[in-house]
Amino acid sequence: MAKDLTTRKDNYSQWYNELVTKADLAENSAVRGCMVIKPYGYAIWESMQNALDKMFKETGHVNAYFPLFIPKSFFSREASHVEGFAKECAVVTHYRLKNDPEGKGIVVDENAKLEEELIVRPTSETIIWDTYRNWIQSYRDLPLLINQWANVVRWEMRTRLFLRTAEFLWQEGHTAHATQQEALAEAEQMLRVYADFVENWMAVPVFRGIKSPNERFAGAVETFCIEALMQDGKALQAGTSHFLGQNFAKAFDVKFLNKENKLEYVWATSWGVSTRLMGALIMSHSDDEGLVLPPKLAPIQVVIVPIYKNQEQFDAVSEKALEIKKQLQIKGIRVKYDDRDTQKPGFKFNEWEFKGVPVRIAIGPRDVENDTVEVARRDTLEKDVLHINDLSVKIDNLLEKIQSNLFQKALDFRNENTYKVDSWDEFQKQIEKGGFVMAHWDGTSETEQKIKEETKATIRFIPIEGEKEHGRCVYSGKPSEKYVYFARSY
Amino acid sequence: MAKDLTTRKDNYSQWYNELVTKADLAENSAVRGCMVIKPYGYAIWESMQNALDKMFKETGHVNAYFPLFIPKSFFSREASHVEGFAKECAVVTHYRLKNDPEGKGIVVDENAKLEEELIVRPTSETIIWDTYRNWIQSYRDLPLLINQWANVVRWEMRTRLFLRTAEFLWQEGHTAHATQQEALAEAEQMLRVYADFVENWMAVPVFRGIKSPNERFAGAVETFCIEALMQDGKALQAGTSHFLGQNFAKAFDVKFLNKENKLEYVWATSWGVSTRLMGALIMSHSDDEGLVLPPKLAPIQVVIVPIYKNQEQFDAVSEKALEIKKQLQIKGIRVKYDDRDTQKPGFKFNEWEFKGVPVRIAIGPRDVENDTVEVARRDTLEKDVLHINDLSVKIDNLLEKIQSNLFQKALDFRNENTYKVDSWDEFQKQIEKGGFVMAHWDGTSETEQKIKEETKATIRFIPIEGEKEHGRCVYSGKPSEKYVYFARSY
Repeated sequence: MAKDLTTRKDNYSQWYNELVTKADLAENSAVRGCMVIKPYGYAIWESMQNALDKMFKETGHVNAYFPLFIPKSFFSREASHVEGFAKECAVVTHYRLKNDPEGKGIVVDENAKLEEELIVRPTSETIIWDTYRNWIQSYRDLPLLINQWANVVRWEMRTRLFLRTAEFLWQEGHTAHATQQEALAEAEQMLRVYADFVENWMAVPVFRGIKSPNERFAGAVETFCIEALMQDGKALQAGTSHFLGQNFAKAFDVKFLNKENKLEYVWATSWGVSTRLMGALIMSHSDDEGLVLPPKLAPIQVVIVPIYKNQEQFDAVSEKALEIKKQLQIKGIRVKYDDRDTQKPGFKFNEWEFKGVPVRIAIGPRDVENDTVEVARRDTLEKDVLHINDLSVKIDNLLEKIQSNLFQKALDFRNENTYKVDSWDEFQKQIEKGGFVMAHWDGTSETEQKIKEETKATIRFIPIEGEKEHGRCVYSGKPSEKYVYFARSY
Repeated sequence: MAKDLTTRKDNYSQWYNELVTKADLAENSAVRGCMVIKPYGYAIWESMQNALDKMFKETGHVNAYFPLFIPKSFFSREASHVEGFAKECAVVTHYRLKNDPEGKGIVVDENAKLEEELIVRPTSETIIWDTYRNWIQSYRDLPLLINQWANVVRWEMRTRLFLRTAEFLWQEGHTAHATQQEALAEAEQMLRVYADFVENWMAVPVFRGIKSPNERFAGAVETFCIEALMQDGKALQAGTSHFLGQNFAKAFDVKFLNKENKLEYVWATSWGVSTRLMGALIMSHSDDEGLVLPPKLAPIQVVIVPIYKNQEQFDAVSEKALEIKKQLQIKGIRVKYDDRDTQKPGFKFNEWEFKGVPVRIAIGPRDVENDTVEVARRDTLEKDVLHINDLSVKIDNLLEKIQSNLFQKALDFRNENTYKVDSWDEFQKQIEKGGFVMAHWDGTSETEQKIKEETKATIRFIPIEGEKEHGRCVYSGKPSEKYVYFARSY
């Protein structure tokens, strides 16, 4: 495998694009803005899905499936939702093609025009709440705790693999509750689930907070978010959980009889994470040698590479390698024995390093003699010679160590790149350098908008907890009671 | 739960529709032809997906994801494919909506017209082979063994939940090979995988065969299929596997350097099963009391219902029930303890019977005294009182017994409804009665077409194996060398 990877320092953005394609994660397709997720990339996404799906089920949720298409008129029902979502969408206007009468391939059959256009879902609140109307009559039908794994389409003008694509894969939870309190608790719970997943599986530290009204989900009363910091100092929103109040229940007339036998509108939440997490994963840990994957999500956790000069050596090494492979598998470790005879060990070392396999084991004839193996860590690139006694336990421990080391490294990086500033001058300088910038804000959308115009930075989140600290807005000088977190972002 | 279910005898079609909606499997949505798969139905689909996905991976396949949209021109590339697939499709023509200048909601922005229309994929051969062109250079890149789980859209005029919907969920395998022989072997292997799944997980017996040219997949050289018989005597195609020859490789210019260093077109297969299998599952086993699910796919395999008159009894019964639940769970059995205090036992019995839970355990105060439970089978509706010693082993055996009993029952039904006929008169009478009708056929599309017009029956499959038997076509009287299987079908 030729590495030939642009360094992060030279061009971070190009480094990312090259890494994604050269590590066989994804590529652009023939359809503008739509990506192909390649098998190696999809395997990581599957690991993510499995972990998340289990967490959703453990918190009482079930999966279901709602239509890909949404009638155009549904978007007009919820006033702020239409502003945020019904614009850059794929619109289905016809349902039939026909042979071109002039013999030039196929053309749209103008006789097959839909009475009402259908929108390819950019998110499913509207169609789901239209459905819930028939499912909910009484408080006994509540709560509804439903999740959907699906593809969605938002017609983005500038796309980047995983980070911003016209079509992407995601999950969207849509829950219905009898009380405001319960819905709020659900939205907060799912934020905790997301933070737990991103920190403990992806090894990416996140801040939790709420969005300012400007950055809120269209139709939400409150948007909770987790925010991560990438190596180039830009923030990335890794997941959101929305408390929707009764907005969608009112828009779609979803009422229930409460215990006092009175009709009330239902309370709602929605929450989602997407293939965008792949972008966060890649950008958080990878280096100039290629991908670095946290062991918990790596499709291959350990690769074994044989070193040999002839068939006899290969046979001896293979016997040992297969024995080790079996031991590791018994321990539940995902291991691959790379016995291709078409490639040299050096090529294999490079390839698996580039693809981010956390641990590489090399075995040569001398190792067979000495009952040893050479073990290399992807995260630190350190090598060590280990005796094969209890090797599976040692490797298991090493994988845990790598997982926590990746998290710690990312956490240190974020902490080193989170600054508190108290003047507009400092603010501008610091935003230019990257990282999270904590600053006082007067709470108005106007100020937020002006700061964005002047610095390209937005409020990533307002901390949920923490004491009040009196101060003055870094931009307007008006009084403020809390530091909020600004950053440039993906 | 009010049953209120039309009987199969009274109106089979209505029985099916009522069953699907009343058992909370699926329902029609606000979008014509698109269904909502409800949580209970989706849980069954998830069981199917898990089992199939494991089988695909065990046979060396990996998952990936390709775009939802396909450029219109792609369909014109493969001549027969365009005829079969590019007609009844959802066509995306615009990518933006805007506020109606007259203030009436939102309208399509005519300035945002796509240069080339995009088709929502009805199947993905074209976009995938366009992608494979860049992935395949040499024989070393082959085989590619890739599967995709996805939603697809075919604009059907008459839709029925699960059986025929505009949008449905499916998997589509798309493999690329260096030789014809290898591709053929792959297509045959996947047919075996499908047959294995449908028979051993769904408990639905299937015939395997090949399709006549009339019924072949658009673009295939050979279509292999599995065919099942429903309780109303109609056949249902449960899965297909296609040997595509070099048709798509030629259409999308996918060549590889073979071992002799010569450029050759790649050989292809594709294969798929869909949410249609849900229809087959429901129709094969269910009865006038409701759904009947094979244990291997049932989201809940065992439900425990407590019988009690007061809190004291409830506490005693619950203690026992939870102990049993735990024992069953240790054995890997999916069990639910229905301790709702809002419903009577009779209501619960009916509800779980209607939802097809294979085994119901009832525990009352006397059972607690006697260390017994009442066990009811959904398939035979038989009840038995069992001592709780080794109960989890007994229940585990019972679930296996139910699984094989369902298969045997369906197999007996199919065998009793498969007839061999040798005259046109017999043929017409038998087709009218339902079932598979084996008859000689002269091998021409014209005859097949005429038989279809006169009897609504099609050739479901031509047996792959079996000796030649000389005879005369039941319709034309021309010579024939094989019985083929006709039926009316879904």
